[in-house]
Amino acid sequence: MYAHIKLYHRFIDVGFMNTRVYDNCLLATMVKGDVPYGLISDAAFCLRDGYIEWVGEAKALPPIYRDAAKTDLGGALVTPALIDCHTHLVHGGDRAGEFEMRLEGATYEELARAGGGILSTVKATRAASDEELTRQSLVRLDRLLADGVAVVEIKSGYGLTIDDEIRMLRIARRLGDLRPVKIVTTWLAAHTLPVEYKGEADRYLDEVAIPGLERAAAEGLVDSVDGFCETIGFSVAQIARLFDKAVALGLPVRLHAEQLSNQRGAVLAAEYQALSVDHLEYLAKSDVAALAAAGTGAVLLPGAFYTLRQSQQPPVAAMRDAGVGMSVATDCNPGSSPLSSLLLAMNLACNLFGLTPEEALRGTTREAALALGLGSEFGTLIKGGRGELAVWNVSHPAQLSYHIGATPLLRRISAMEAV
Amino acid sequence: MYAHIKLYHRFIDVGFMNTRVYDNCLLATMVKGDVPYGLISDAAFCLRDGYIEWVGEAKALPPIYRDAAKTDLGGALVTPALIDCHTHLVHGGDRAGEFEMRLEGATYEELARAGGGILSTVKATRAASDEELTRQSLVRLDRLLADGVAVVEIKSGYGLTIDDEIRMLRIARRLGDLRPVKIVTTWLAAHTLPVEYKGEADRYLDEVAIPGLERAAAEGLVDSVDGFCETIGFSVAQIARLFDKAVALGLPVRLHAEQLSNQRGAVLAAEYQALSVDHLEYLAKSDVAALAAAGTGAVLLPGAFYTLRQSQQPPVAAMRDAGVGMSVATDCNPGSSPLSSLLLAMNLACNLFGLTPEEALRGTTREAALALGLGSEFGTLIKGGRGELAVWNVSHPAQLSYHIGATPLLRRISAMEAV
Repeated sequence: MYAHIKLYHRFIDVGFMNTRVYDNCLLATMVKGDVPYGLISDAAFCLRDGYIEWVGEAKALPPIYRDAAKTDLGGALVTPALIDCHTHLVHGGDRAGEFEMRLEGATYEELARAGGGILSTVKATRAASDEELTRQSLVRLDRLLADGVAVVEIKSGYGLTIDDEIRMLRIARRLGDLRPVKIVTTWLAAHTLPVEYKGEADRYLDEVAIPGLERAAAEGLVDSVDGFCETIGFSVAQIARLFDKAVALGLPVRLHAEQLSNQRGAVLAAEYQALSVDHLEYLAKSDVAALAAAGTGAVLLPGAFYTLRQSQQPPVAAMRDAGVGMSVATDCNPGSSPLSSLLLAMNLACNLFGLTPEEALRGTTREAALALGLGSEFGTLIKGGRGELAVWNVSHPAQLSYHIGATPLLRRISAMEAV
Repeated sequence: MYAHIKLYHRFIDVGFMNTRVYDNCLLATMVKGDVPYGLISDAAFCLRDGYIEWVGEAKALPPIYRDAAKTDLGGALVTPALIDCHTHLVHGGDRAGEFEMRLEGATYEELARAGGGILSTVKATRAASDEELTRQSLVRLDRLLADGVAVVEIKSGYGLTIDDEIRMLRIARRLGDLRPVKIVTTWLAAHTLPVEYKGEADRYLDEVAIPGLERAAAEGLVDSVDGFCETIGFSVAQIARLFDKAVALGLPVRLHAEQLSNQRGAVLAAEYQALSVDHLEYLAKSDVAALAAAGTGAVLLPGAFYTLRQSQQPPVAAMRDAGVGMSVATDCNPGSSPLSSLLLAMNLACNLFGLTPEEALRGTTREAALALGLGSEFGTLIKGGRGELAVWNVSHPAQLSYHIGATPLLRRISAMEAV
């Protein structure tokens, strides 16, 4: 099984020892082109040491593979393994009590008095031990993996001290050792203000978010830098100060932008060549061109839109027309999106935002890989790509977005090692 | 394990051979009263031959159970196993293609020309072999079971000939032999008109729906009788003719009512002492009292509301005030609700209809049992009830509705036999 082949084998010529042909399948390669989903029927593909060496129609399989080991996939659909490119997976506690109080009619004041809101998660995260945070996060991660996910982005943002933010990212990295998944980490100290800095966002940036980023980056814990640009978060000018430090450290940026109001954070992020801007319900159509020009992706988070009972939709048609890459993610977090199924996020994106099933699947494969700066190694089923694939009990890729709450994964094909 | 104990053991005195004590758990008994969820902390319960013999605080466990076998539940939450009281689980094919065409901008006419809509499911159901229908239905049933479901209602309604309607219910019954689940069957020949009866609803009732009911009932295949009362379905007068036959056969009735418009079908159903009226988005507040007076339950189907992008909500507050029992179900069907997670239906009911988490859980336990005419054998954790229970990896029952797309079931406790 490829699950136990170490990647360094890639550089050793071992003949066909580590080569396997998979056939009798329908491939959704997600390669850009005229064919929807980049579909190939009656297909085959060859993996060698965890990478894709050949893809095509089975009848065109080169004779060189005649003696390779073979797996018959029984006609199943194969796609690139999915990518969840926006999560707050590592956090302590949950907010079910707040959810219940709200539905029982509690006012905003009553919820605040009961200690609700994001700061209750900060409190619970700070209080939890590393082991407890890891254990709680693994429950959510395992649910994502059951949807065929191979890559998960995880943000800090519930520690809000240098040590606690760094601790969150260390735990995020550790999850990648405990499960067969690639973790991409994001520094999100500029998520909200801790009580000890109430009304002093700039001082918080100077004393925590910016120096902490420097320390975390030095420890190799930061793959990108994020912030929450909003009236209740940080201003464009403050985010710019944070991004300047990211640039100085050679780190890419992304941004929570235009979720609840239009601050034009997305335009700022595009100026910094951000990998992505996320949420975007209040993005002005006139600002879409800036994203397209910068090559900045749009990450749509319908789980939060649904949970917050929002009504203004992100400008999907304008982004589609402008060629802005659109991803779909769970935004898995205990407050606004306690969602741990990426397939369900795809269904929500179709039903609530009007994405097509093909856009939804691109949004959790090819576009999500781009939003994470992973190029074409993940998210596309092409020669040279990583052989991280998902095999599904469906006959057409549209069914992945159509079903609600189903669990159609048959198996993952993976070269990632788990402990 | 109780899973393999035959129920006839109940009538044989075997001392404590078939008695087991479960302790170290939080019980949501769902017993009506002052305590939310009927919660009992630090609880224990005893099962004997598949029935609940004792429930209470562990410290009050009678000494008679001292020598019984014991299972430590590790502090987990235990609830009655869930009940999905409205599904169209048995059907052929899917409608992912139609879903995709619609999101790609196809007009209603284009969808009709492409053979979409409910009649495409009738065609696929008629064409599928018994084995194929069983296989496809088991995929959906297994997903429901993964949410801790013990009872599933299944309707006919995609056959629309006497033979095909009877075939659907035979397959529904068979599912109960293939899996540890109780199946409740519903005759829904008055679901829509097949092409061969276009514009001739009364003739269809006289030639198919009514005589077919008589035959199916004679074969013991019908637990209740249902219809779709709507401008695009059957009129109140036509439903009354069907219900008269049900009454004559001694069968209880239920009704798809007020989903897309107010036909006052719910009032008619209440006159027939219906077990439930289902959907109800357009139920007039002034008609709620009729349901309360008749003891007719309301079955809420938020999966259809969500998929159809409806905006008018059922009159939940009025039903709550009037004491109408509210259930929540998946409505699992290939067109308006391709939903196969009952926990997700609970979350949808909270977020879209404003149910409290406690109402949502009552709606899939105690109230759902009443809507299916099962009394208190299912759906409540009380002495004398069936020991069909679900054990969850959560610390409070509100979390069952709060999480979106999670799979928190640890195990079922069940005396039902599977093949």
